Amino acid sequence: MKDIGLTFEQIQIGDRASFTKTITETDVVIFAGISGDLNPVHLDAVYAEQSTFKRRIAHGALVNSLISAVLGMKLPGKGTIYLQQNTSFLAPVYIGDTITATLTVKQKTDRKRVIIETTCTNQKNEIVISGEATVLCPK
Amino acid sequence: MKDIGLTFEQIQIGDRASFTKTITETDVVIFAGISGDLNPVHLDAVYAEQSTFKRRIAHGALVNSLISAVLGMKLPGKGTIYLQQNTSFLAPVYIGDTITATLTVKQKTDRKRVIIETTCTNQKNEIVISGEATVLCPK
Amino acid sequence: MKDIGLTFEQIQIGDRASFTKTITETDVVIFAGISGDLNPVHLDAVYAEQSTFKRRIAHGALVNSLISAVLGMKLPGKGTIYLQQNTSFLAPVYIGDTITATLTVKQKTDRKRVIIETTCTNQKNEIVISGEATVLCPK
Amino acid sequence: MKDIGLTFEQIQIGDRASFTKTITETDVVIFAGISGDLNPVHLDAVYAEQSTFKRRIAHGALVNSLISAVLGMKLPGKGTIYLQQNTSFLAPVYIGDTITATLTVKQKTDRKRVIIETTCTNQKNEIVISGEATVLCPK
Repeated sequence: MKDIGLTFEQIQIGDRASFTKTITETDVVIFAGISGDLNPVHLDAVYAEQSTFKRRIAHGALVNSLISAVLGMKLPGKGTIYLQQNTSFLAPVYIGDTITATLTVKQKTDRKRVIIETTCTNQKNEIVISGEATVLCPK
Repeated sequence: MKDIGLTFEQIQIGDRASFTKTITETDVVIFAGISGDLNPVHLDAVYAEQSTFKRRIAHGALVNSLISAVLGMKLPGKGTIYLQQNTSFLAPVYIGDTITATLTVKQKTDRKRVIIETTCTNQKNEIVISGEATVLCPK
Repeated sequence: MKDIGLTFEQIQIGDRASFTKTITETDVVIFAGISGDLNPVHLDAVYAEQSTFKRRIAHGALVNSLISAVLGMKLPGKGTIYLQQNTSFLAPVYIGDTITATLTVKQKTDRKRVIIETTCTNQKNEIVISGEATVLCPK
Repeated sequence: MKDIGLTFEQIQIGDRASFTKTITETDVVIFAGISGDLNPVHLDAVYAEQSTFKRRIAHGALVNSLISAVLGMKLPGKGTIYLQQNTSFLAPVYIGDTITATLTVKQKTDRKRVIIETTCTNQKNEIVISGEATVLCPK
């Protein structure tokens, strides 16, 4: 991580960064514990088999958190203040899927907000999450 | 947890449920690992002291995940499909804060979507997150 | 993280990168579990109070692992192959200390090895670890 | 664990102890979080398949930590002070490999240091780590 992220002046429309990670059973189990979301579709293999999804899926909020990693680590990076996140969960993420969160700067507003497109894709290049973050850049 | 959550027919505008949890240092350290968000404002006590926040704060995406807990466990509950989440991060959450996520059903749409107001407050009753979830009820 | 780390040709003597993190009780407890090192000086507060150290200290091998973070994430970065690590543990690291691992490229050998000085300091700028890593750069 | 480890007088050249553990996906995911080493060769199954290693490998620093377990738990044991570790990473460790760290006392120095050979082997008896620890015995 650089010592300070991109300032409002430095960041440019079209700037892009990403982070990739395989969503493991460990991630799902631990996320269940810290979020309190013990929904059986994530934790109960028997229940999940009989559900629409046929096997355990990751929490949407867990997948969503990869966006936070890119914001805080890369674009804009260290010192970013997270103001808003709009997220649509478009497809299930299964345990073992490899997810890439890709962020692209869309707009710089008059009030120094930066609007960033936030997309998560799986290893088949299917979009699983689409959305938009609003942030303040580090000063 | 009941064996099945509330169906679209059962759920009513005004229905409300909540979940409360203290956000510990452990939650933050572990969430950093599974999200990949190692932003020093969460993990580096010296850096955080010199930041706007004066001490380490929790990841917004971690606090946001308490909403997922209420959706999947209580309202509508087991079998809920999470379609969309819009979140505004209004105030920082510090390590040791006790956060309550409260969900209130606002609207039932023609296309069988349920719109739920999602608010997180801290132990001083300050709103730290406000937003809205869209879900499909269990069938 | 850039898409590929620095190659042998790109990396220069004097290149430097660092990573800072507060070593929490959570880190120590979890590290004990995955390493199998349940030494009471790390896990038993009563024992630790009566020891030379007066309170629980972090595992040297845990602190040492911050060096791996810099190698794999920044210098040389993605694709680095870790060949060797020599480490001297010079001072104890207490739970709550904030440690910075700083890596400085010292030498590029005929056999395409890169020798990197690896130093960890605490929040008082005391050196707690000094050593040297040997790596192969990504190709 | 005995109440106190072997003293300098008690420990003998040739003394040997070991610790064996399967390195699981959980260990790797959690170690990534506490070390900050999110290198994709450990966390991204798709990237790892395309790398030299063909699948995800464990962090060298994680495998190395099994040595610390033997030092602190068995040889010399409780009260040991870890002064130095030199480690060569000779072969990759894959998720699911079962690793044995074996320590053998090599030398007792004039200054009351004990030099211990530290070797880690996998389930096929291949040496994955070789090195040397220097410690002070408990008093």
